[in-house]
Amino acid sequence: MKQSDVVRVGLLGLGTVGCGVVRLLEGHKDDLEKQTGQHIVITKVLVQDAKKGRGVHLSSEQITDDPAQVLNHPEIDVIVEVMGGIDPAREYILQAIANGKNVVTANKDLMALHGGEILSVAATKQCDVFYEASVAGGIPILRALVEGFSSDRITKMIGIVNGTTNYILTAMEQEGVMFEDALAQAQELGYAEADPTADIDGLDAARKMAILATLGFRIDMPLAGVEAKGIADITQEDVSFAHQLGYRIKLVGIAQRDQGKVEVSVQPVLLPLSHPLSSVDGVYNAVAVYGEAVGETMFYGPGAGGMPTATAVVSDLVTVVKNRRLGVNGRGTVGPYQKRILKSLDEIESKHFLRLHVTDEAGVLAQLTMLFASENISLETVLQLPYGENSAQIILITHRASRRQMDHVQNEIVALEAVQGIQSYYRVEGGREG
Amino acid sequence: MKQSDVVRVGLLGLGTVGCGVVRLLEGHKDDLEKQTGQHIVITKVLVQDAKKGRGVHLSSEQITDDPAQVLNHPEIDVIVEVMGGIDPAREYILQAIANGKNVVTANKDLMALHGGEILSVAATKQCDVFYEASVAGGIPILRALVEGFSSDRITKMIGIVNGTTNYILTAMEQEGVMFEDALAQAQELGYAEADPTADIDGLDAARKMAILATLGFRIDMPLAGVEAKGIADITQEDVSFAHQLGYRIKLVGIAQRDQGKVEVSVQPVLLPLSHPLSSVDGVYNAVAVYGEAVGETMFYGPGAGGMPTATAVVSDLVTVVKNRRLGVNGRGTVGPYQKRILKSLDEIESKHFLRLHVTDEAGVLAQLTMLFASENISLETVLQLPYGENSAQIILITHRASRRQMDHVQNEIVALEAVQGIQSYYRVEGGREG
Repeated sequence: MKQSDVVRVGLLGLGTVGCGVVRLLEGHKDDLEKQTGQHIVITKVLVQDAKKGRGVHLSSEQITDDPAQVLNHPEIDVIVEVMGGIDPAREYILQAIANGKNVVTANKDLMALHGGEILSVAATKQCDVFYEASVAGGIPILRALVEGFSSDRITKMIGIVNGTTNYILTAMEQEGVMFEDALAQAQELGYAEADPTADIDGLDAARKMAILATLGFRIDMPLAGVEAKGIADITQEDVSFAHQLGYRIKLVGIAQRDQGKVEVSVQPVLLPLSHPLSSVDGVYNAVAVYGEAVGETMFYGPGAGGMPTATAVVSDLVTVVKNRRLGVNGRGTVGPYQKRILKSLDEIESKHFLRLHVTDEAGVLAQLTMLFASENISLETVLQLPYGENSAQIILITHRASRRQMDHVQNEIVALEAVQGIQSYYRVEGGREG
Repeated sequence: MKQSDVVRVGLLGLGTVGCGVVRLLEGHKDDLEKQTGQHIVITKVLVQDAKKGRGVHLSSEQITDDPAQVLNHPEIDVIVEVMGGIDPAREYILQAIANGKNVVTANKDLMALHGGEILSVAATKQCDVFYEASVAGGIPILRALVEGFSSDRITKMIGIVNGTTNYILTAMEQEGVMFEDALAQAQELGYAEADPTADIDGLDAARKMAILATLGFRIDMPLAGVEAKGIADITQEDVSFAHQLGYRIKLVGIAQRDQGKVEVSVQPVLLPLSHPLSSVDGVYNAVAVYGEAVGETMFYGPGAGGMPTATAVVSDLVTVVKNRRLGVNGRGTVGPYQKRILKSLDEIESKHFLRLHVTDEAGVLAQLTMLFASENISLETVLQLPYGENSAQIILITHRASRRQMDHVQNEIVALEAVQGIQSYYRVEGGREG
């Protein structure tokens, strides 16, 4: 094989994904050569501790704890960043691009916060930057949005994009355990970090939704514009009432565009059992994509894990290698070209679920329903049940109403003397129409 | 806009998909220009009857019934073939390629039968040939196989890739109607052709599976190697017994690779309710893809229809236009490079479902189960029910057994005096593991 047929890779990070990348490049060597016509070699791997043992075959010459040996290596063509975190990953990637190297990254935190900067610097240096692995692990969803649906106008993306919270919610529903126990279970199995805050609070999902909205809507969607609500307050009662009414509670990201205005958010929602996302269980991810012309589509697969994530990384690497052979690195990327106009609270509409505790006295339900009527919100489902002595529990599901309307009506509800409190409040997503 | 920034398209066919293509190019004009930096123009449209009215805006100058005016037009860069059928589509496409034109086609019949020839001629002329729309309409499944999973080794694809038969089976299950009535219903709604043979007999699905196997396994998979069994013999009894045992009957294509040997087939199978494909209803399509590294993934969406299919066609066109701008048309395609070795009947293994009518006399079930034991096939489920006077119905689901073993045991079963006949025989697909 000629020198020109060799592509040299510098790997930043050797955790589960990094080891997966090494294994794939080794195990699928012949396939990769057949597809790219090139021999892909790992030249340097940056690790924190060069002496630590790993489960992959790498020589001591390949391993280094000095970033300059990777980023400034004159022969390295592609940097694969799988170390995670913002610092120093951002600095390393910018340095690599400054040195004319193409980049593949699995880093959702970085791409959600600094994707715009990185992509625009890469464009001036004619370098590829691909990041398929940053959203929904092994599912090639970014490719689908950018290429598969390039001809269509996407109106909505709704996704289960965090496996940890989906595992917890699945356990709460199927095993009847409480949030805390489900979380402990997830931690034991390695599905949740020791500090699970970013997952539980919906921040991890918000990062992925910022990336999906940027690519799907062709806008520049900053992470700060993504409202995130987590799952820590979901009770077993919510889960079982939802189930009773034909719904499942899932933490979903929603990116929706109507008349040129967008909303991007993450929150627990009630999904009807017929919704394509409601049967996505455990650590799996799925994204439903709605286009003006294509209608409803759905993409499902493993959202995390060393090997699934590594397939996305190495598939991106294959694209870089093919582009390099054709001499077109950095030429294919289309930046955001649509204006970002966020919806106001009046414009964000959905159905809603409310659970209240009230004093069990005559006329409470009448008072409540009159409040909704005066706000012009019609009710789809009303359920009243006894709750302890002298109290009642009321479950309401509304027809479509705006966030503003719901804010108003909730303020009025808690002002009623008979109302002890609003126990829970969730968005309800529609049927197949999204 | 400079002349060099204009891409001229010749459209072959103006049916529902053709009209969808015209509408998308017109309606999403600005988006397409932003993404490609090029102005895409429909220069000529080949139709059978130039005088027939259509629901799209085209000038009489654009319309022609003379293929030469499209295929030999010196300024046309891309031919979009949406006329369907083998002849004269094959001839037209080869002529277009001979003239150096890139090709986008939605033609599954053609690509399943003559894809190898067309792609190899295109390679010598450095022309792109893309055909995303040929399989599963609006779902970008070919891109996922070729690019998204380029790093992985696909072990299995199982898909509902024919909307007509899925509509019929859904109606049979949900409405309890017989095959003939469900078919008539599908025809009334325009989901089935006047002559539905290709759909009903599984031939349409077989064509799509040949294409999926070729791309997913990187082999040259001829249509003749795809065994197809249709749905015309499925009875309401089969559907309801399957349901009772926790299964749904779906017409699925299976492409499976084990130890380098492949099997590609189409047949009605029993899918457990937990299988990701079992809840795919109506005219929707879905393909589950299993990779060594990625595990289980699934792609779901509309399998047909003018607009969904047109999105796939125009997204391919966008890729052609981008490639043209970079000067790399015809350089990205990787032909099959794996050897095709088909599995023998001994190597095709699955669970199986059998329904028999027997004379209701002592010892019949014992005779039957002994036959299975002597063939080394163990049984997972046995159900015996009275059937009319003096007869019984027996349902059996086996554990994994080869096709050869099942052929043997069925020959022995029908030779038993007490057996009146084997009413039905289906393959049973496993749980999430595929």
